[in-house]
Amino acid sequence: MTNPKLHLIDTDIHERVQYSQLLPYLPQPYRRYIEDCSWIQEKHMPFTQPAVAGVDRADAVVPDGRPAGSDLPFMQSQLLDEIGHEFGILTGALDPSPSSMHGWYEMATALASAYNDWQIEHWLEKDERLYGSVHIAAQDPQGAVKEIERVGSHKKMVQILLPIDDKLWGDPYYHPIFEAAEKHDLMIGMHHNEPPVHYGKWPRYFIEWHTLIPVAHMTMVTNMVFNGVFEKFPKLKMMMIEGGFTYVPFLMRKMDQQYRDLRHEVPWIKRMPSDIIRKHICFTTQPLEEMTKKEFLQTFEHMGTDEIVSFSTDYPHWDYDSPYEALPKGLDEGLQRKLFSENARNFYPKLPQLKEEE
Amino acid sequence: MTNPKLHLIDTDIHERVQYSQLLPYLPQPYRRYIEDCSWIQEKHMPFTQPAVAGVDRADAVVPDGRPAGSDLPFMQSQLLDEIGHEFGILTGALDPSPSSMHGWYEMATALASAYNDWQIEHWLEKDERLYGSVHIAAQDPQGAVKEIERVGSHKKMVQILLPIDDKLWGDPYYHPIFEAAEKHDLMIGMHHNEPPVHYGKWPRYFIEWHTLIPVAHMTMVTNMVFNGVFEKFPKLKMMMIEGGFTYVPFLMRKMDQQYRDLRHEVPWIKRMPSDIIRKHICFTTQPLEEMTKKEFLQTFEHMGTDEIVSFSTDYPHWDYDSPYEALPKGLDEGLQRKLFSENARNFYPKLPQLKEEE
Repeated sequence: MTNPKLHLIDTDIHERVQYSQLLPYLPQPYRRYIEDCSWIQEKHMPFTQPAVAGVDRADAVVPDGRPAGSDLPFMQSQLLDEIGHEFGILTGALDPSPSSMHGWYEMATALASAYNDWQIEHWLEKDERLYGSVHIAAQDPQGAVKEIERVGSHKKMVQILLPIDDKLWGDPYYHPIFEAAEKHDLMIGMHHNEPPVHYGKWPRYFIEWHTLIPVAHMTMVTNMVFNGVFEKFPKLKMMMIEGGFTYVPFLMRKMDQQYRDLRHEVPWIKRMPSDIIRKHICFTTQPLEEMTKKEFLQTFEHMGTDEIVSFSTDYPHWDYDSPYEALPKGLDEGLQRKLFSENARNFYPKLPQLKEEE
Repeated sequence: MTNPKLHLIDTDIHERVQYSQLLPYLPQPYRRYIEDCSWIQEKHMPFTQPAVAGVDRADAVVPDGRPAGSDLPFMQSQLLDEIGHEFGILTGALDPSPSSMHGWYEMATALASAYNDWQIEHWLEKDERLYGSVHIAAQDPQGAVKEIERVGSHKKMVQILLPIDDKLWGDPYYHPIFEAAEKHDLMIGMHHNEPPVHYGKWPRYFIEWHTLIPVAHMTMVTNMVFNGVFEKFPKLKMMMIEGGFTYVPFLMRKMDQQYRDLRHEVPWIKRMPSDIIRKHICFTTQPLEEMTKKEFLQTFEHMGTDEIVSFSTDYPHWDYDSPYEALPKGLDEGLQRKLFSENARNFYPKLPQLKEEE
């Protein structure tokens, strides 16, 4: 099945940690709070998980019983070697995550640091194909900037995963983080970590919540663009992860329409919102809806570009997309090359250039 | 400009009341609270309004200075006669609305009743072209059902405007209201009345809030469908007002995909979500984004139908759509007939059948 011609850059792979593994990376006094105290998870999904292995592929559970995504050799064999990845971007599966700690910011910041160190040592420096995400506790912006300064220049760190919190990211509160992102050529990655639905509450069913994840992405794109973040930080780029992309034609058109009518309210915006999106924002494919080739191509026509969408598997989650199965059949090679590789390479400045064909 | 062949059924016209006008319809002790006390508006938009006449068309302000939408003869001349409406559905402009009263439910229920009586007397019984919406205070569901029983059988009442509150409408809490809707052949109308954005908070700019109104519609459609409302109430139909419709292809595809994967969680759903939408839910056009004819037609192709979209002007608001200007040019007559008239007629069971051509 391995296909070296794919040059796949997988923009969403979840490696998983167990908190005990972070202990060597945590300074005191924080270490003892995990070693010696009860750890209270502040929030958790109120649904029965959708699959026999929770939110994971049953066949991705490590043969010795550890959870999916927690073992590098098994991930190498099942994903990277089997599919023929050129590169993969790790996005983590830290639950509870530092960003969900609404008190005790110092501990949250220490946890994010521990996670980054663990990620670098056990993943990024163990497989040349794997690139990483800087985790931060954005509720402590000074601490977050320090952490970006500390690990952001690592050659395999390509983005900052910015947690979704009460403040939307267009808020000037986040400017120091964006400044640090620009300085270190890091993208800002968005991956949902909160219920994005009705007043932030969980709906009755997993299927509702999961259907509406793109709503959080629409909210954030709208907020970032109209707040002028990309005027203030002209090199900044965003990766919208695990929200799909088929809502983008609607969102571009709606934002352009509103901008034509209401641009006097946001005079710092000098370009059409859809132009800003096309220049600064990339969207991952997964979970890709079933579409005919015609519908798929028309979606790109309506977006006015096929250069801001990047393939992702979401391994090891239950709704994993295979690069051999998820796209409509019969796409031309140029488009496949963009989706599987070129677009991600163009957006992530720190990814190496294309290898020579063997 | 009048065009009798349009047979326009305008599914969103806002008539406006001033609270003093409701006094004759309000029983005591509620009347004296408006006459004698300070009236505290619980919430208001934190933005400067987008247009010189607030949220209204400047030319729709009544010549004697009263606010747009508050005078029937002026509306008749400027809208109904000028455009050549066959019918129009009134959706109100009640701010603060009964549904925003989070305390004192009895007063909220009395206000909704007063509004309905005022609407019937001054609008529905004064112009044969105008049809109405039953306003309710859904925070008092028994009171709401009583109100539907009281005025819902009026021959010109065609829908219940259900306020958006903390509970999404798929909640069984609303079942008595849906039962009453079915009984009286009333649609359920959704028109945003709350900030639909991030955790229910207002964003920094009007343009953000206004761009993201469809997000509230996506949330509600998803919730209604997966909660099985249309299985429990097979005659129930919904009109999604002022959210546009160009997000619908995305939403249908996403819901179908999620249903294929997760249908074991919602075993009461026996049809594909997109089939449920096509049978039970209609979407109004306004505010229609600028689209080429090709993009416009492809949007219907992706929806698999052109029979669930209905034209609306949103008169007298600033972003009013004219039936002569808002659609792409060169649409064939059959499609125009559906959008301007047939689709609304098929959804609202109480609208009269097509008049004979003059």
